[in-house]
Amino acid sequence: MSEILSSLRSLMASHSPPLDSLVVPSEDYHQSEYVSARDKRREFVSGFTGSAGLALITKNEARLWTDGRYFLQAIQQLSDEWTLMRMGEDPLVEVWMSDNLSEEANIGVDPWCVSVDTANRWGKAFAKKSQNLVPTTTDLVDEVWKSRPPSEMNPVLVHPLEFAGRSVSEKLTDLRAKLKQESARGLVIAALDEVAWLYNIRGTDVAYCPVVHAFAIVTTDSAFLYVDKKKVSDEASEYFKGLGVEVKEYTDVISDVALLASDRLFSSFSSKNEAATKDMEIDSEKTDRLWVDPASCCYALYSKLEADKVLLQPSPLSLPKALKNPVELEGLKKAHVRDGAAVVQFLVWLDQQMQELYGASGYFMEAEANKKKPTTKLTEVTVSDKLESLRAAKEHFRGLSFPTISSVGSNAAIIHYSPEPEACAEMDPDKIYLCDSGAQYLDGTTDITRTVHFGKPSAHEKDCYTAVLKGHVALGSARFPKGTNGYTLDILARAPLWKYGLDYRHGTGHGVGSYLFVHEGPHQVSFRPSARNVPLQATMTVTDEPGYYEDGNFGIRLENVLVVNNAETEFNFGDKGYLQFEHITWAPYQVKLIDLKQLTGEEIDWLNTYHLKCKDILAPFMNQTEMEWLKKATEPVSVSV
Amino acid sequence: MSEILSSLRSLMASHSPPLDSLVVPSEDYHQSEYVSARDKRREFVSGFTGSAGLALITKNEARLWTDGRYFLQAIQQLSDEWTLMRMGEDPLVEVWMSDNLSEEANIGVDPWCVSVDTANRWGKAFAKKSQNLVPTTTDLVDEVWKSRPPSEMNPVLVHPLEFAGRSVSEKLTDLRAKLKQESARGLVIAALDEVAWLYNIRGTDVAYCPVVHAFAIVTTDSAFLYVDKKKVSDEASEYFKGLGVEVKEYTDVISDVALLASDRLFSSFSSKNEAATKDMEIDSEKTDRLWVDPASCCYALYSKLEADKVLLQPSPLSLPKALKNPVELEGLKKAHVRDGAAVVQFLVWLDQQMQELYGASGYFMEAEANKKKPTTKLTEVTVSDKLESLRAAKEHFRGLSFPTISSVGSNAAIIHYSPEPEACAEMDPDKIYLCDSGAQYLDGTTDITRTVHFGKPSAHEKDCYTAVLKGHVALGSARFPKGTNGYTLDILARAPLWKYGLDYRHGTGHGVGSYLFVHEGPHQVSFRPSARNVPLQATMTVTDEPGYYEDGNFGIRLENVLVVNNAETEFNFGDKGYLQFEHITWAPYQVKLIDLKQLTGEEIDWLNTYHLKCKDILAPFMNQTEMEWLKKATEPVSVSV
Repeated sequence: MSEILSSLRSLMASHSPPLDSLVVPSEDYHQSEYVSARDKRREFVSGFTGSAGLALITKNEARLWTDGRYFLQAIQQLSDEWTLMRMGEDPLVEVWMSDNLSEEANIGVDPWCVSVDTANRWGKAFAKKSQNLVPTTTDLVDEVWKSRPPSEMNPVLVHPLEFAGRSVSEKLTDLRAKLKQESARGLVIAALDEVAWLYNIRGTDVAYCPVVHAFAIVTTDSAFLYVDKKKVSDEASEYFKGLGVEVKEYTDVISDVALLASDRLFSSFSSKNEAATKDMEIDSEKTDRLWVDPASCCYALYSKLEADKVLLQPSPLSLPKALKNPVELEGLKKAHVRDGAAVVQFLVWLDQQMQELYGASGYFMEAEANKKKPTTKLTEVTVSDKLESLRAAKEHFRGLSFPTISSVGSNAAIIHYSPEPEACAEMDPDKIYLCDSGAQYLDGTTDITRTVHFGKPSAHEKDCYTAVLKGHVALGSARFPKGTNGYTLDILARAPLWKYGLDYRHGTGHGVGSYLFVHEGPHQVSFRPSARNVPLQATMTVTDEPGYYEDGNFGIRLENVLVVNNAETEFNFGDKGYLQFEHITWAPYQVKLIDLKQLTGEEIDWLNTYHLKCKDILAPFMNQTEMEWLKKATEPVSVSV
Repeated sequence: MSEILSSLRSLMASHSPPLDSLVVPSEDYHQSEYVSARDKRREFVSGFTGSAGLALITKNEARLWTDGRYFLQAIQQLSDEWTLMRMGEDPLVEVWMSDNLSEEANIGVDPWCVSVDTANRWGKAFAKKSQNLVPTTTDLVDEVWKSRPPSEMNPVLVHPLEFAGRSVSEKLTDLRAKLKQESARGLVIAALDEVAWLYNIRGTDVAYCPVVHAFAIVTTDSAFLYVDKKKVSDEASEYFKGLGVEVKEYTDVISDVALLASDRLFSSFSSKNEAATKDMEIDSEKTDRLWVDPASCCYALYSKLEADKVLLQPSPLSLPKALKNPVELEGLKKAHVRDGAAVVQFLVWLDQQMQELYGASGYFMEAEANKKKPTTKLTEVTVSDKLESLRAAKEHFRGLSFPTISSVGSNAAIIHYSPEPEACAEMDPDKIYLCDSGAQYLDGTTDITRTVHFGKPSAHEKDCYTAVLKGHVALGSARFPKGTNGYTLDILARAPLWKYGLDYRHGTGHGVGSYLFVHEGPHQVSFRPSARNVPLQATMTVTDEPGYYEDGNFGIRLENVLVVNNAETEFNFGDKGYLQFEHITWAPYQVKLIDLKQLTGEEIDWLNTYHLKCKDILAPFMNQTEMEWLKKATEPVSVSV
């Protein structure tokens, strides 16, 4: 048995009350998808490095739940002590725990690392057998984790209005109007991107995510930021002062939430103070409700509030953040042009390298490689480093937006594969190469996937690429009435694959932030019921990324970022107004991988139009060689009769 | 003020307690969609003849709620005393009542004519203002309705096994297994088609619906039928005896449900009797739950049960009835062939008539009519009578399955238009003609819509017909993994219309019975959330009927009945198994109305394949003239370059 598990089990036994099992979620105190190195508790415990998952340690067992994107990766990374639980196939974690743990079992979890939603859902499942969800007094993993990285100490950066597009005071005014509308006197904000968006700040505390570890509280007349004050420069301090935002220590948030619960939280910037409040106690307009987003707020903070005075509802910041303002939209589009240029430059470089080093027939030729032993080896990691360096040379580059999925052959079937320098595959002219990557630019966040082949793809690979492309185009060129959600649209991207009995085990699209998280809500395009919560709306961003993955063989995904626009339809039945998508990602599809005969005339037109724009838009960034390559890659196609 | 409303208002005033308002639903005691003449209370009160709607009469107002299919028709039929409430646009009836009726208002309804679901939903809405839903002691409308037709007196007909395909005892065994599974000791069956399906009986009590007015109760060891005994012949009586089904008077159902509630309902056919039961009272396997489908069971019966001992859940008969057995499928397919032949014969006749009488250029020619005054007038009603006579000549014909929607020009925009002999439109060679019709055959129920033009359609009409056809083909040729529901598929039929900003205000498909109701659940293809309740499953029937309706101008709908089949896909990703549709409706689409340039190669292939089959399958029914017409109508098409 590993030392980690045995140490944890002895801490579980000595905990008061003793724990029959311990849940270790992937999330940090802010229920983030991407967490900093020191918050990777689930990874430390299980060895599984995927971004989503949950570990459960009982006295005799260790199980890891993760979703379809990660099944293959988890199998590779988990030791024999662990059992993989496949989400969507195996029972839900709470169902499994309720069914398999004993009556009155104590199930521990760090209450900072579990959301209100999750804790409540588990609590319900546990009631059947009088099992208890026990908030641990400390994080048991942290105690075991001797080499845990220290706290990040990065400055809070003010995000200029020329990129943010909307002032903090405007955002606060909007937010307070919503608080009033819902009769709430305050909001606890735990989601890192919401804190960053609301206060127009950015940071570098979390890899890939330009945010600061911070909480916020906003009431009808006060605003607080909870952050390690060492991160706040004098200049930033002045900035917050100017906004009337009171900066307090990160660790103060728990006591302040308790004060907020009893309406005794006062800001030095507010006109309201303790004395004044006493006189105002009979204020008819006043209400006692506090707004908490149950998906992002942790149970630790929630437990300081009176449950019957909490408005548990999705955050009022989620939708305004998703609806991009004109400055953000302009920035996003510009960032995507620079990013597309880097991707094309990468493909040009890679095409040349694959031919020179590996004897590949190349991006344009459909022939077996004249294989040779390379003088320098290219690996999944070295090529993705090259891509990063090309992006890094672009204006406003601030880092990657997620770990690049640079994957050759069967690795491409691992949906969220992340190659490691020590153990990654070598490039291969006979295999598909899938690259899903993105960057953070000061003016926008990008996310693009292209799948290429530098040799002779099989007919089956071409069939699959064509089906994926057909789905990608069907969704990306859809028009739909206002009020339509991404649950309804999802099938457009899948239907061409279903014809062959093919499918993919992930959603089709997610929102993309403005120099923020690469995955953001509240909308999505997916078969998941949550995709029905919020309809697609003009100015939202969303990715269009169908795929097909054949275990042990190859993977295909094509991904563009789209912006939702009002559509100028010929008619307007029902006076609903119609929407359509604008593609803002620019890089060619590999024509060699398309079986053009399977495309409709409309699809061919779409492809040619997109490629033409691609060439024109990226031209200013190309040198002569690159431009020649791009011209060739975007040449109009037609179906030969 | 009309006499009906004033009489009702005085009955409302003298009711105990006095009623502030009275709800008159469309439904009969069985919550049927189609009701017999004497059950058309809402129509009698309001004058609106549509199949769906609800009337509300207050002291000063009269309002009628109906759905998008009927807006135009309701406007035409309602007098000035009535206000039309548009479902989907205006507040829901219960919201309106709760908001607009006074505190503690008494809102009356005949408890036999309202489902448990509806009564419960209203009750919740009324709680806010302490309003009361009052079950009226008698049906006030019946008291006012002096000329109410007498009770139907039609024989109960045994439906032979050669058409039913599954014996009553097998169906009872399956049903009892489900009762056991849900720990229920009995089921109250109110839906007329469920009674007919379970006991393999049919009748003629309700126009278009081959059913008998009857209730049923099934327990773990007994089975009852509640029907006017005068309808039961000696032969039928023997049949029920042979099955162990006890036949009781229709009116006995209410007292028997009360007996059932206290577990004192005994059948003379059962081994169990009162004496025996006393000994069995400590039966560990026994449970006290009674199963009631809240959508089809009326409040009157439900109110005799103890609420906490009722399992309110969709009927266990709904899915087995929807899953057709091989005999039913064979019958359905045969019935659809005969029905398609009648439709083609009708089109041939109509084509000839339109040319002869009206100087139309005809079904095949795209030219202005050489208009002339007809020697005999053709109207929406006379032509639909012709269609009925052609169907009536076919084997196993038993009547129509719903009132034929025979509609010219702007009438075709009224989705469920039903022409009246006295006030219907004349045929017109310059206008679109939409015909949605179906019949009851002993071996199956049919439902088909074709839209045709005998002159020169406008480019806009052709665009719309083409978009509707594209949607119809997209849905009808879809493949999808098992578990997919009709909510997910609905967009396939709409997307081609959405491209132009067009849409239709109705669902896309409904189940079709086996010599039963033309509309049956539990599945459907629709944007409505209820379409998510039950996934599509192999052997189900479902219609594929997108449309487009331009108020005051024209309407287009194309409808086939499909059977869900297992698909032999090339791959089987996720081992889910895939499904596809088989079209069982046979009649050509009008090529003249298609802008072939807008069809993809796949769509052209689909059309040609369908037309070829159409010709071959219908050939045995055609005389020489008809066959020539059919050959021409089904000639393969191609896109001229």
